Amino acid sequence: MIGYPNKKKSIAKVNNYANLGMTLESDIVETNAYYLKHNLAVIHKKPTPIQVVNVSYPARNKAKITEAYYRTPSTTDFNGLYKGKYIDFDAKETTSKTSFPLANVHEHQILHLTDVDNHGGIAFLIVGWKAYNEYYYLPFKSLLAIWDKSKTDGRKSIPYSYFKETCHQIPFSYQPRLNYLKIVDLFI
Amino acid sequence: MIGYPNKKKSIAKVNNYANLGMTLESDIVETNAYYLKHNLAVIHKKPTPIQVVNVSYPARNKAKITEAYYRTPSTTDFNGLYKGKYIDFDAKETTSKTSFPLANVHEHQILHLTDVDNHGGIAFLIVGWKAYNEYYYLPFKSLLAIWDKSKTDGRKSIPYSYFKETCHQIPFSYQPRLNYLKIVDLFI
Repeated sequence: MIGYPNKKKSIAKVNNYANLGMTLESDIVETNAYYLKHNLAVIHKKPTPIQVVNVSYPARNKAKITEAYYRTPSTTDFNGLYKGKYIDFDAKETTSKTSFPLANVHEHQILHLTDVDNHGGIAFLIVGWKAYNEYYYLPFKSLLAIWDKSKTDGRKSIPYSYFKETCHQIPFSYQPRLNYLKIVDLFI
Repeated sequence: MIGYPNKKKSIAKVNNYANLGMTLESDIVETNAYYLKHNLAVIHKKPTPIQVVNVSYPARNKAKITEAYYRTPSTTDFNGLYKGKYIDFDAKETTSKTSFPLANVHEHQILHLTDVDNHGGIAFLIVGWKAYNEYYYLPFKSLLAIWDKSKTDGRKSIPYSYFKETCHQIPFSYQPRLNYLKIVDLFI
Protein backbone atom coordinates (compact mmCIF):
# COMPACT_ATOMS: atom_id res chain seq x y z
CA MET A 1 0.00 0.00 0.00
CA ILE A 2 2.70 2.50 -0.81
CA GLY A 3 1.61 5.72 -2.43
CA TYR A 4 -1.89 7.03 -2.58
CA PRO A 5 -2.93 7.93 -6.10
CA ASN A 6 -5.63 10.46 -5.51
CA LYS A 7 -5.92 13.37 -3.19
CA LYS A 8 -9.24 12.42 -1.69
CA LYS A 9 -7.87 9.24 -0.32
CA SER A 10 -4.88 10.82 1.39
CA ILE A 11 -7.19 13.18 3.16
CA ALA A 12 -9.39 10.38 4.37
CA LYS A 13 -6.30 8.55 5.44
CA VAL A 14 -4.97 11.38 7.55
CA ASN A 15 -8.33 11.57 9.27
CA ASN A 16 -7.91 8.02 10.41
CA TYR A 17 -5.15 8.43 12.88
CA ALA A 18 -4.14 12.03 13.24
CA ASN A 19 -5.64 15.20 14.68
CA LEU A 20 -9.23 14.79 13.63
CA GLY A 21 -11.02 12.17 15.63
CA MET A 22 -8.27 12.07 18.21
CA THR A 23 -10.44 13.36 21.01
CA LEU A 24 -13.22 10.94 20.27
CA GLU A 25 -10.73 8.13 19.98
CA SER A 26 -9.10 8.89 23.31
CA ASP A 27 -12.51 9.28 24.96
CA ILE A 28 -13.38 5.78 23.77
CA VAL A 29 -10.04 4.39 24.89
CA GLU A 30 -10.70 5.87 28.35
CA THR A 31 -14.20 4.48 28.34
CA ASN A 32 -12.86 1.04 27.48
CA ALA A 33 -10.35 1.27 30.33
CA TYR A 34 -13.27 2.09 32.64
CA TYR A 35 -15.24 -0.89 31.34
CA LEU A 36 -12.28 -3.19 31.85
CA LYS A 37 -11.52 -1.88 35.33
CA HIS A 38 -15.13 -2.35 36.38
CA ASN A 39 -15.27 -5.76 34.79
CA LEU A 40 -18.02 -4.77 32.36
CA ALA A 41 -16.40 -5.53 29.02
CA VAL A 42 -13.09 -6.35 27.33
CA ILE A 43 -12.81 -3.94 24.43
CA HIS A 44 -9.53 -2.64 23.03
CA LYS A 45 -8.35 -0.35 20.28
CA LYS A 46 -6.27 -2.11 17.69
CA PRO A 47 -2.83 -0.66 17.02
CA THR A 48 -2.48 1.54 13.94
CA PRO A 49 -1.08 -0.64 11.16
CA ILE A 50 2.38 0.48 10.11
CA GLN A 51 4.51 -0.84 7.29
CA VAL A 52 8.07 -1.08 8.53
CA VAL A 53 10.70 -0.62 5.83
CA ASN A 54 13.93 -0.09 7.74
CA VAL A 55 15.10 -0.94 11.23
CA SER A 56 18.44 -0.12 12.81
CA TYR A 57 19.95 -1.37 16.06
CA PRO A 58 21.77 1.56 17.64
CA ALA A 59 21.55 0.05 21.12
CA ARG A 60 21.87 -3.60 21.99
CA ASN A 61 18.36 -4.10 23.20
CA LYS A 62 16.26 -1.76 21.21
CA ALA A 63 15.31 -1.93 17.57
CA LYS A 64 14.86 1.54 16.13
CA ILE A 65 12.52 1.82 13.17
CA THR A 66 13.98 4.42 10.82
CA GLU A 67 11.60 4.19 7.90
CA ALA A 68 7.96 3.22 8.04
CA TYR A 69 4.61 4.26 6.61
CA TYR A 70 1.05 4.26 7.80
CA ARG A 71 -1.09 1.63 6.16
CA THR A 72 -4.81 1.67 5.61
CA PRO A 73 -6.41 -0.47 8.31
CA SER A 74 -8.16 -3.53 6.88
CA THR A 75 -10.73 -3.65 9.64
CA THR A 76 -12.08 -1.27 12.27
CA ASP A 77 -10.37 0.37 15.21
CA PHE A 78 -12.19 -1.28 18.09
CA ASN A 79 -13.34 -4.76 18.92
CA GLY A 80 -13.94 -6.92 21.93
CA LEU A 81 -16.29 -8.80 24.14
CA TYR A 82 -19.37 -7.69 26.06
CA LYS A 83 -21.84 -9.99 27.81
CA GLY A 84 -20.50 -12.89 25.80
CA LYS A 85 -21.05 -11.00 22.52
CA TYR A 86 -18.51 -9.96 19.95
CA ILE A 87 -18.49 -6.17 19.52
CA ASP A 88 -16.91 -4.37 16.57
CA PHE A 89 -17.03 -0.69 15.71
CA ASP A 90 -15.28 2.36 14.43
CA ALA A 91 -15.39 5.95 15.65
CA LYS A 92 -15.86 8.84 13.25
CA GLU A 93 -15.95 12.52 13.95
CA THR A 94 -17.17 15.35 11.79
CA THR A 95 -16.81 19.10 12.09
CA SER A 96 -19.83 19.65 9.86
CA LYS A 97 -22.98 21.06 11.39
CA THR A 98 -25.30 19.63 8.81
CA SER A 99 -24.17 16.27 7.48
CA PHE A 100 -21.83 13.35 8.05
CA PRO A 101 -19.86 12.66 4.84
CA LEU A 102 -19.96 9.03 3.75
CA ALA A 103 -16.37 9.49 2.56
CA ASN A 104 -15.42 9.14 6.24
CA VAL A 105 -16.34 5.49 5.99
CA HIS A 106 -14.10 3.26 3.92
CA GLU A 107 -15.29 0.47 1.67
CA HIS A 108 -13.13 -2.09 3.48
CA GLN A 109 -14.75 -1.08 6.78
CA ILE A 110 -18.17 -1.68 5.27
CA LEU A 111 -17.00 -5.09 4.08
CA HIS A 112 -15.54 -5.95 7.45
CA LEU A 113 -18.61 -4.83 9.38
CA THR A 114 -20.79 -6.78 6.95
CA ASP A 115 -18.78 -9.89 7.84
CA VAL A 116 -19.18 -9.16 11.53
CA ASP A 117 -22.89 -8.59 11.19
CA ASN A 118 -23.37 -11.77 9.17
CA HIS A 119 -21.54 -13.82 11.78
CA GLY A 120 -23.65 -12.60 14.68
CA GLY A 121 -21.44 -9.85 16.05
CA ILE A 122 -22.62 -6.41 17.11
CA ALA A 123 -21.44 -3.88 14.54
CA PHE A 124 -21.88 -0.13 14.63
CA LEU A 125 -20.27 3.27 14.29
CA ILE A 126 -19.90 5.94 16.91
CA VAL A 127 -20.37 9.25 15.13
CA GLY A 128 -19.25 12.41 16.89
CA TRP A 129 -20.50 15.87 15.96
CA LYS A 130 -17.85 18.29 17.11
CA ALA A 131 -20.03 21.33 16.57
CA TYR A 132 -22.60 19.99 19.00
CA ASN A 133 -20.51 17.80 21.27
CA GLU A 134 -22.95 15.05 20.48
CA TYR A 135 -22.22 11.39 19.90
CA TYR A 136 -24.53 8.94 18.22
CA TYR A 137 -24.72 5.19 17.92
CA LEU A 138 -25.25 4.30 14.27
CA PRO A 139 -26.17 0.61 13.96
CA PHE A 140 -24.33 -1.01 11.08
CA LYS A 141 -27.56 -2.18 9.45
CA SER A 142 -28.75 1.43 9.20
CA LEU A 143 -25.41 2.52 7.81
CA LEU A 144 -25.43 -0.30 5.27
CA ALA A 145 -28.91 0.61 4.04
CA ILE A 146 -27.80 4.22 3.50
CA TRP A 147 -24.51 3.11 1.94
CA ASP A 148 -26.23 0.78 -0.53
CA LYS A 149 -28.82 3.40 -1.38
CA SER A 150 -26.10 5.98 -1.98
CA LYS A 151 -24.87 3.89 -4.91
CA THR A 152 -28.07 4.68 -6.75
CA ASP A 153 -29.28 7.97 -5.33
CA GLY A 154 -25.81 9.51 -5.29
CA ARG A 155 -26.19 10.88 -1.79
CA LYS A 156 -22.78 11.59 -0.32
CA SER A 157 -23.63 12.21 3.31
CA ILE A 158 -26.06 11.49 6.13
CA PRO A 159 -27.89 14.58 7.38
CA TYR A 160 -27.57 15.59 11.02
CA SER A 161 -31.35 15.36 11.32
CA TYR A 162 -31.13 11.63 10.59
CA PHE A 163 -28.97 11.13 13.67
CA LYS A 164 -31.11 13.46 15.76
CA GLU A 165 -34.31 11.70 14.80
CA THR A 166 -33.42 8.04 14.43
CA CYS A 167 -30.21 7.31 16.36
CA HIS A 168 -29.57 6.88 20.04
CA GLN A 169 -27.39 9.55 21.54
CA ILE A 170 -24.49 8.27 23.62
CA PRO A 171 -24.32 9.95 27.01
CA PHE A 172 -21.13 11.93 27.62
CA SER A 173 -19.99 12.20 31.20
CA TYR A 174 -16.95 12.22 33.40
CA GLN A 175 -16.82 8.49 34.01
CA PRO A 176 -17.22 6.67 31.79
CA ARG A 177 -16.68 9.28 29.12
CA LEU A 178 -18.90 7.81 26.43
CA ASN A 179 -21.11 5.09 27.80
CA TYR A 180 -21.84 3.43 24.48
CA LEU A 181 -22.56 0.04 26.04
CA LYS A 182 -25.74 1.58 27.40
CA ILE A 183 -26.88 1.80 23.80
CA VAL A 184 -25.45 -1.61 22.88
CA ASP A 185 -27.72 -2.99 25.61
CA LEU A 186 -30.73 -1.93 23.56
CA PHE A 187 -29.54 -4.06 20.66
CA ILE A 188 -28.74 -7.33 22.41
CA MET B 1 -12.53 0.63 -3.84
CA ILE B 2 -9.64 2.28 -5.61
CA GLY B 3 -6.24 1.32 -4.40
CA TYR B 4 -7.28 -0.40 -1.20
CA PRO B 5 -5.31 -3.52 -0.57
CA ASN B 6 -7.35 -6.64 -0.75
CA LYS B 7 -7.03 -9.10 2.05
CA LYS B 8 -4.56 -11.25 0.24
CA LYS B 9 -2.27 -8.31 -0.31
CA SER B 10 -2.26 -7.31 3.35
CA ILE B 11 -1.36 -10.87 4.20
CA ALA B 12 1.63 -10.75 1.92
CA LYS B 13 2.65 -7.57 3.64
CA VAL B 14 2.37 -9.03 7.11
CA ASN B 15 4.70 -11.76 5.96
CA ASN B 16 7.27 -9.16 5.09
CA TYR B 17 8.34 -7.74 8.36
CA ALA B 18 7.95 -9.92 11.40
CA ASN B 19 10.56 -12.26 12.71
CA LEU B 20 10.22 -14.87 15.42
CA GLY B 21 7.32 -17.27 15.15
CA MET B 22 6.76 -16.00 11.65
CA THR B 23 5.98 -19.31 10.07
CA LEU B 24 3.31 -20.21 12.59
CA GLU B 25 1.97 -16.67 12.46
CA SER B 26 1.73 -16.60 8.69
CA ASP B 27 0.13 -20.05 8.66
CA ILE B 28 -2.54 -18.72 10.99
CA VAL B 29 -2.98 -15.57 8.94
CA GLU B 30 -3.48 -17.72 5.85
CA THR B 31 -5.87 -19.95 7.71
CA ASN B 32 -7.88 -16.90 8.77
CA ALA B 33 -8.01 -15.69 5.17
CA TYR B 34 -9.35 -19.11 4.22
CA TYR B 35 -11.99 -18.93 6.97
CA LEU B 36 -13.04 -15.47 5.85
CA LYS B 37 -13.17 -16.40 2.18
CA HIS B 38 -15.32 -19.43 2.94
CA ASN B 39 -17.50 -17.43 5.27
CA LEU B 40 -16.64 -19.55 8.29
CA ALA B 41 -15.23 -16.96 10.68
CA VAL B 42 -14.00 -13.37 10.93
CA ILE B 43 -10.65 -13.58 12.69
CA HIS B 44 -7.80 -11.14 12.14
CA LYS B 45 -4.31 -10.56 13.40
CA LYS B 46 -3.91 -7.28 15.20
CA PRO B 47 -1.22 -4.97 13.87
CA THR B 48 2.07 -4.92 15.76
CA PRO B 49 1.93 -1.95 18.13
CA ILE B 50 4.48 0.69 17.25
CA GLN B 51 5.31 3.87 19.11
CA VAL B 52 5.81 6.64 16.58
CA VAL B 53 8.26 9.32 17.68
CA ASN B 54 9.02 11.29 14.51
CA VAL B 55 7.21 11.76 11.23
CA SER B 56 8.38 13.74 8.24
CA TYR B 57 6.53 14.78 5.11
CA PRO B 58 8.94 14.45 2.21
CA ALA B 59 6.13 14.18 -0.32
CA ARG B 60 2.89 16.06 -0.23
CA ASN B 61 0.69 13.09 0.32
CA LYS B 62 2.77 10.70 2.26
CA ALA B 63 3.76 10.76 5.91
CA LYS B 64 7.12 9.10 6.44
CA ILE B 65 7.81 7.77 9.91
CA THR B 66 11.49 8.35 10.64
CA GLU B 67 11.70 7.24 14.25
CA ALA B 68 9.57 4.62 15.93
CA TYR B 69 9.89 1.69 18.31
CA TYR B 70 8.15 -1.61 18.79
CA ARG B 71 5.92 -1.68 21.84
CA THR B 72 4.90 -4.64 23.95
CA PRO B 73 1.40 -5.73 22.91
CA SER B 74 -1.13 -5.33 25.71
CA THR B 75 -3.33 -8.15 24.49
CA THR B 76 -2.96 -11.13 22.19
CA ASP B 77 -2.27 -11.29 18.47
CA PHE B 78 -5.52 -12.74 17.21
CA ASN B 79 -9.18 -12.18 17.90
CA GLY B 80 -12.47 -12.37 16.11
CA LEU B 81 -15.81 -13.97 15.71
CA TYR B 82 -16.83 -17.57 15.10
CA LYS B 83 -20.37 -18.94 15.24
CA GLY B 84 -21.42 -15.85 17.15
CA LYS B 85 -18.67 -16.40 19.72
CA TYR B 86 -15.77 -14.13 20.59
CA ILE B 87 -12.46 -15.89 19.97
CA ASP B 88 -9.13 -14.70 21.36
CA PHE B 89 -5.76 -16.40 21.20
CA ASP B 90 -2.06 -16.13 20.76
CA ALA B 91 0.33 -18.32 18.82
CA LYS B 92 3.59 -19.52 20.34
CA GLU B 93 6.30 -21.58 18.82
CA THR B 94 9.15 -23.45 20.47
CA THR B 95 12.26 -25.09 19.08
CA SER B 96 12.59 -27.27 22.16
CA LYS B 97 11.98 -31.00 21.84
CA THR B 98 11.06 -31.53 25.44
CA SER B 99 9.25 -28.58 26.97
CA PHE B 100 7.42 -25.35 26.24
CA PRO B 101 8.94 -22.53 28.33
CA LEU B 102 6.35 -20.53 30.25
CA ALA B 103 8.54 -17.49 29.63
CA ASN B 104 7.02 -17.47 26.13
CA VAL B 105 3.78 -16.34 27.68
CA HIS B 106 3.63 -12.84 29.07
CA GLU B 107 1.86 -11.87 32.26
CA HIS B 108 -0.28 -9.28 30.43
CA GLN B 109 -1.43 -11.99 28.04
CA ILE B 110 -2.51 -14.15 30.96
CA LEU B 111 -4.40 -11.18 32.39
CA HIS B 112 -6.04 -10.41 29.06
CA LEU B 113 -7.05 -14.02 28.42
CA THR B 114 -8.40 -14.22 31.98
CA ASP B 115 -10.64 -11.25 31.17
CA VAL B 116 -11.75 -12.90 27.93
CA ASP B 117 -12.47 -16.18 29.69
CA ASN B 118 -14.42 -14.44 32.46
CA HIS B 119 -16.57 -12.61 29.95
CA GLY B 120 -17.56 -15.72 28.04
CA GLY B 121 -15.06 -15.59 25.20
CA ILE B 122 -13.11 -18.56 23.90
CA ALA B 123 -9.48 -18.18 24.95
CA PHE B 124 -6.57 -20.42 24.07
CA LEU B 125 -3.04 -20.69 22.80
CA ILE B 126 -1.82 -22.39 19.68
CA VAL B 127 1.50 -23.96 20.55
CA GLY B 128 3.77 -25.04 17.73
CA TRP B 129 6.59 -27.55 18.17
CA LYS B 130 9.05 -26.85 15.40
CA ALA B 131 11.02 -30.02 15.99
CA TYR B 132 7.95 -32.14 15.35
CA ASN B 133 5.91 -29.91 13.07
CA GLU B 134 3.09 -30.36 15.52
CA TYR B 135 0.58 -27.78 16.65
CA TYR B 136 -1.56 -28.05 19.75
CA TYR B 137 -4.60 -26.27 21.07
CA LEU B 138 -3.97 -25.32 24.68
CA PRO B 139 -7.21 -24.16 26.32
CA PHE B 140 -6.67 -21.09 28.43
CA LYS B 141 -8.09 -22.76 31.53
CA SER B 142 -5.43 -25.47 31.31
CA LEU B 143 -2.72 -22.87 30.79
CA LEU B 144 -3.98 -20.83 33.74
CA ALA B 145 -3.96 -23.84 36.06
CA ILE B 146 -0.34 -24.56 35.11
CA TRP B 147 0.59 -20.88 35.33
CA ASP B 148 -0.89 -20.51 38.82
CA LYS B 149 0.70 -23.73 39.99
CA SER B 150 4.08 -22.60 38.65
CA LYS B 151 4.05 -19.79 41.20
CA THR B 152 4.32 -22.35 43.97
CA ASP B 153 6.01 -25.37 42.40
CA GLY B 154 8.52 -23.26 40.50
CA ARG B 155 8.01 -25.17 37.26
CA LYS B 156 9.19 -23.06 34.34
CA SER B 157 7.85 -25.02 31.41
CA ILE B 158 5.18 -27.42 30.20
CA PRO B 159 6.54 -30.80 29.10
CA TYR B 160 5.95 -31.98 25.56
CA SER B 161 4.28 -35.07 26.99
CA TYR B 162 1.57 -32.85 28.49
CA PHE B 163 0.62 -31.64 25.02
CA LYS B 164 0.89 -35.11 23.54
CA GLU B 165 -1.32 -36.63 26.22
CA THR B 166 -3.87 -33.98 27.08
CA CYS B 167 -4.16 -31.46 24.23
CA HIS B 168 -5.86 -31.71 20.88
CA GLN B 169 -3.50 -31.60 17.95
CA ILE B 170 -4.40 -29.11 15.23
CA PRO B 171 -4.41 -30.71 11.80
CA PHE B 172 -1.91 -29.18 9.39
CA SER B 173 -2.79 -29.30 5.72
CA TYR B 174 -2.62 -27.36 2.51
CA GLN B 175 -5.94 -25.56 2.89
CA PRO B 176 -6.63 -24.42 5.49
CA ARG B 177 -3.13 -24.57 6.86
CA LEU B 178 -3.99 -24.98 10.51
CA ASN B 179 -7.61 -25.82 11.00
CA TYR B 180 -7.83 -24.73 14.62
CA LEU B 181 -11.57 -24.06 14.46
CA LYS B 182 -12.02 -27.81 14.24
CA ILE B 183 -10.71 -27.91 17.81
CA VAL B 184 -12.61 -24.81 18.89
CA ASP B 185 -15.75 -26.71 17.85
CA LEU B 186 -15.08 -29.20 20.63
CA PHE B 187 -15.18 -26.41 23.20
CA ILE B 188 -18.36 -24.58 22.20
